Formats: sequence, structure tokens, C-alpha cells
Amino acid sequence: MTIKVVQMGLGPIGNKATQYLLGRGNLKIVGAIDSDPAKAGKDVAALAGLDPIGVTVASDTDRVLKGKKVDVVVLTTTSTMTGIMSQLTSLLPYGVNIVSSCEELSYPWVTQPEMSKQIDELAKKYGVSVLSNGVNPGFLMDFLPLTMTGVCRTVRKITVERIQDATFRRIPFQKKIGAGCTQAEFQAKVKDRTLRHVGLTESLHMISARLGWKLDRTEDVISPILAKHPVKMGQDTIKEGQAVGVQQIGRGMIGDKEVITLFFRAAIGEPESRDRIIIDGDPEIDTCIKGGVNGDVATCAVLVNSIPTIVNARPGLRTMADVEPVTCYQ
Amino acid sequence: MTIKVVQMGLGPIGNKATQYLLGRGNLKIVGAIDSDPAKAGKDVAALAGLDPIGVTVASDTDRVLKGKKVDVVVLTTTSTMTGIMSQLTSLLPYGVNIVSSCEELSYPWVTQPEMSKQIDELAKKYGVSVLSNGVNPGFLMDFLPLTMTGVCRTVRKITVERIQDATFRRIPFQKKIGAGCTQAEFQAKVKDRTLRHVGLTESLHMISARLGWKLDRTEDVISPILAKHPVKMGQDTIKEGQAVGVQQIGRGMIGDKEVITLFFRAAIGEPESRDRIIIDGDPEIDTCIKGGVNGDVATCAVLVNSIPTIVNARPGLRTMADVEPVTCYQ
Repeated sequence: MTIKVVQMGLGPIGNKATQYLLGRGNLKIVGAIDSDPAKAGKDVAALAGLDPIGVTVASDTDRVLKGKKVDVVVLTTTSTMTGIMSQLTSLLPYGVNIVSSCEELSYPWVTQPEMSKQIDELAKKYGVSVLSNGVNPGFLMDFLPLTMTGVCRTVRKITVERIQDATFRRIPFQKKIGAGCTQAEFQAKVKDRTLRHVGLTESLHMISARLGWKLDRTEDVISPILAKHPVKMGQDTIKEGQAVGVQQIGRGMIGDKEVITLFFRAAIGEPESRDRIIIDGDPEIDTCIKGGVNGDVATCAVLVNSIPTIVNARPGLRTMADVEPVTCYQ
Repeated sequence: MTIKVVQMGLGPIGNKATQYLLGRGNLKIVGAIDSDPAKAGKDVAALAGLDPIGVTVASDTDRVLKGKKVDVVVLTTTSTMTGIMSQLTSLLPYGVNIVSSCEELSYPWVTQPEMSKQIDELAKKYGVSVLSNGVNPGFLMDFLPLTMTGVCRTVRKITVERIQDATFRRIPFQKKIGAGCTQAEFQAKVKDRTLRHVGLTESLHMISARLGWKLDRTEDVISPILAKHPVKMGQDTIKEGQAVGVQQIGRGMIGDKEVITLFFRAAIGEPESRDRIIIDGDPEIDTCIKGGVNGDVATCAVLVNSIPTIVNARPGLRTMADVEPVTCYQ
């Protein structure tokens, strides 16, 4: 069976999704939506740097979905629940399933209970399912540690480390993680929320809910990683004491016990890139992905891979913790 | 909600399952069945070395299940499809879900298509689900590599290594893997099928089916690992040239290309115990569980952990590749 897909939101992730979707024999792009008038009328594949496929971008949702047979909308528009809410409520009545890369939608049940309930009820009303994922949140720091607990009789504590050496990443990525900032500039960016990884809190809640743990408190603390000596960044040099990247730590507490710790570090010169999961339980599990998972490819891959899963899923707002496996399918 | 559980098959795995079940607040043992008359009338918890709980073992299935509200039967009786078939066909009409540790039932669709279809139809008829798992098959060498492909755009080849140092395992386990056998004795045991790990073929088929690969051929080859110098085993000494353990390799071929390789090695003195998964794909993934997962605990843990999952699963014969996540739940 070929699954009919409409893409909505044709920024960098949406365009990459186009490339991945076109490589899959079981998926077919039948429509594309973007609010940017400059993209209207352009071919969705051409926007992604490929040969045109005869599917043009529309700005009008109704024109693309009304009366059409569409199975899944791939929604890559925003990172926030407040941003995505009106899009979801307008899409669901067309009876389409939705997969999204929206970080806050990966597990919104605790942070946005009212919105979650509203999405869940609307999806059930129209007999469809909504799922958001990505490499993180949505896989490495929540779903994968949960999966590993499947072979544990008991679990006392979960620690996840996602450590990335940004030395060979593109300069926009290096700037995004604060490299080259003075400490004051770094703090200003944290304050206006332009420098942060979105999702640690969602990951904490997904893990704890699925394990049957009731967290009393969560923390999400961002701090700069500072250069101990001058460091090259493209043509520039980062001075000693300036930021080479970011550290963000998510903590889940039961009473004064830290039962979940999520370490996210991305910096120029950071040693030993890895994705490591340590489960203090019976048995103990210490698993490590050498070099870490390349997020550029993985975020889009897991989104596209979840399309066949969402078509079969129970109706409602779903998360990676309550859908059947998402795997590659070629 | 408390899930009502009946245990059937009170050998070593069944008794361990009792211990694990009794540690879970959301599960309740309401009955126990075993064909051994010597166990009839005994308390199921006492059989597992615990304080009695007032649930006695019966040899008559009908007495335990007829007219009773039972959600799940934990079926730990046999490793083979031919052995478990009549048990499944007699249990399913009671409208109970089934989780099992039967290795061949973990993915029987290719090796036993007729039986699989029969179980699937019967389960659907009664609106219940059947799932078999364990640490291997059912998790480490099939489900977990599949899960890792979730973040891959493409997959070319999957390699899994399960390497176990048997030095500190119990002597029955060491004997089970052929330690102390001459080469002739080892081959005789392979021939009469008393020395083999059951499940590599099932794992190959689960992986390939879920990735959309059509295998042309599978292989499952057993050979001894030989002592290069004398090795201690309890009070005995294994001579040079005798077996210290077993190597078993599963291969999945498309044409003359080996696309899946499963290495299973268990031997006294085997270095670097580990469970390693290597995905040749985009991105590459090389993940390793240091020291490997302790199979004694894990097989029983994943079985018990799958109980809440099977209660919610779609009716039919399910596998770990098509049920919602199995995680610890406390």
C-alpha cells in the first residue's frame, strides 16, 4: 500500500523530509503547504534541490486537503506547542494523521495538559493519530532509554549523556550553541530563549510517566562551556573565557533523589562524542553509541520512518512511548 | 488497573517469573497451571521459594480459566512451535492474552507460516493477542537493532554481536554451551540438537520483514570454540583442543550479499563480553552494551514487562516488531 503524504512547513527540515520521502517506495507526496507566499506555486521537490515531481506548494490548507485522500501530514513548522496548536486544530478535522518534528509536542502531557487533552480528543473524534519525534527529543534521550528498561526487573536511576564535538559542524550550528559568545552574550541569549535545546523537560516526563514514576520536580539548566585556551572557529578565534558551546542538564527528582539525569553537551573541541545510556537497575545497563548519532540525518529519518507506524496507531495524541516500533523501511 | 495473570509452566523460568510478578503492584497472580502431578496443589509462590500467596497449582486448565476473569497467561513451557501449538489452541478460546518465552514463537511467520496463521486467526477470533519474547530472541539481536534503524535514512547491513564470557557462570550453563566436550562429543550434541541457541533464524526473519527486505537464504551455523591451553571448569580441567564454548552465526542473504550477520559466542575465557549492534547505513550506528546484558534476569524481566503491553495490543499473533513499547513499570 502506498501512503499518501502532504508536507506542511517547507523550511530546512521540511525540505530534507522531501528528499527522504522521495526515496521511499511506500510513500508518495501528494501535496505541500507553506504559509510563505514566496514559496507558493513552486514545486516541492525543486524547493528541496531535486527534479520537480509536479506537486506545487499551496498556501491554502483547504485547497490541498479538502475532499482529497490524504493519509498523513508531515508537519515541520515550529518547535512550540503554542505555535503548533492552531495548525493541529485546523488539520485534524480533515481526518489526516500527523507526524511532526515539533519538540514540545513530543511529550506535552505534563507541560501543556489542556492542549494535550484538546489534541487527543480532536484526534479521537476524527479517528486519527498525532505523533511528534526527532532524534532528541523523541528518541535518544527518552524513547531509547525507556526501551532499554524493557529487559530490567527494576530501575533505580537513568542517566543519559548526549555529547557532541562541534569542531567539524557548520558555523551556523556552532553559533547556535553559543560558540564565540562572551559570558554576558551567552546569558543574554539564554534569557531571550534563542540559545537552548528544546526538549529535556519533555524527555524527563516521557521517561517518568512510562516507568510509573511520579516526579516531584524537574530542572533544565543551561550554562556555557568556556574556552580554556584560544580556539579556532572558521576565520575567527574564540578567546580564552568565551563560550565554545553549551551544556544543558535536565534533572528529574523524586523527593530529594535525582532519578533521571540528562546531560546534553555540544561544544567545539568537546572530547568523545557519544550517546550513552546508563541504567542503574537489575540488571545494570551501560550502553554507548560511539561517536553519537548524527542529528542532521537522524531527526528527519525518524520523522519519515514514523509515517507507516502512525497510519496503524491507536487514535489520539500519541508519543514514542505508546506507538508500535518506528524503524527504517526500504 | 490491576492485571490478572495466570502462570502456565512452572519450571525455572516460570518460577523466576513468579518472583518478578509478585514485585509488581499492577500485576496479580490469580492462578497457576502445570502438567507435572508432583506440583499440583502446591502454592505457586512457595514453588518459587517465597512465602505462600494462596494460589495453588492445578493441572487442569479448565478449572483455572473457565468462567474466570483472567487478562494474561504467562506461558513458559517450551522452546518449540510444535510443543506450544496445542497449548495455544486450547488457551485462546478462554479469551486470554498470552505472553510466552517460547523462542520459536518470537517470530514464527516464516519458519512456521501455517501454524502462525492458525494462531493469528484464533487470537483475532477471541479478540486477544499472543506475544513471545526474551532477551534473545525477542530483544537484543532483533528488536533492538530494528529500533536503532528508526533514526536511519537507509540501512545496508546489520551486524549484531552477543559475546559472553562464561567463566563466572554456573557449571550447568557452562555444560550447556559445550564446555569440556571433545570435538566429537560437541558435534554429536549439535547433531541431536541438545546444543544450540534457538532463535537466530527467527531474529533474521524479524529484522528482514520489518525493514522490507526479502531474504533469499538464511544460515545458522554452530561450531565449537576450542581451548588453546588447559582451562579450569569447576573441579575439572578442559584440555587443549576440547571445547570451551560455542559459536553460532546466523546469516541473512539477499543474492550473494550478506545483509544481516548475527554472532553469538559464549565460552569460558571469552574476552570482552558485550552486546554490540553495528548498522551500516545513513547514519552509521555503532552501539555497544558494555559487559552485555545478563540473560538470567533479562529474559524473565522482558517477559513480565510485556504484560501491560499485550493487554493493549491489537488482536492476533504479535511480535516485538509490532507491539507498543515494552518497558519496566514499577
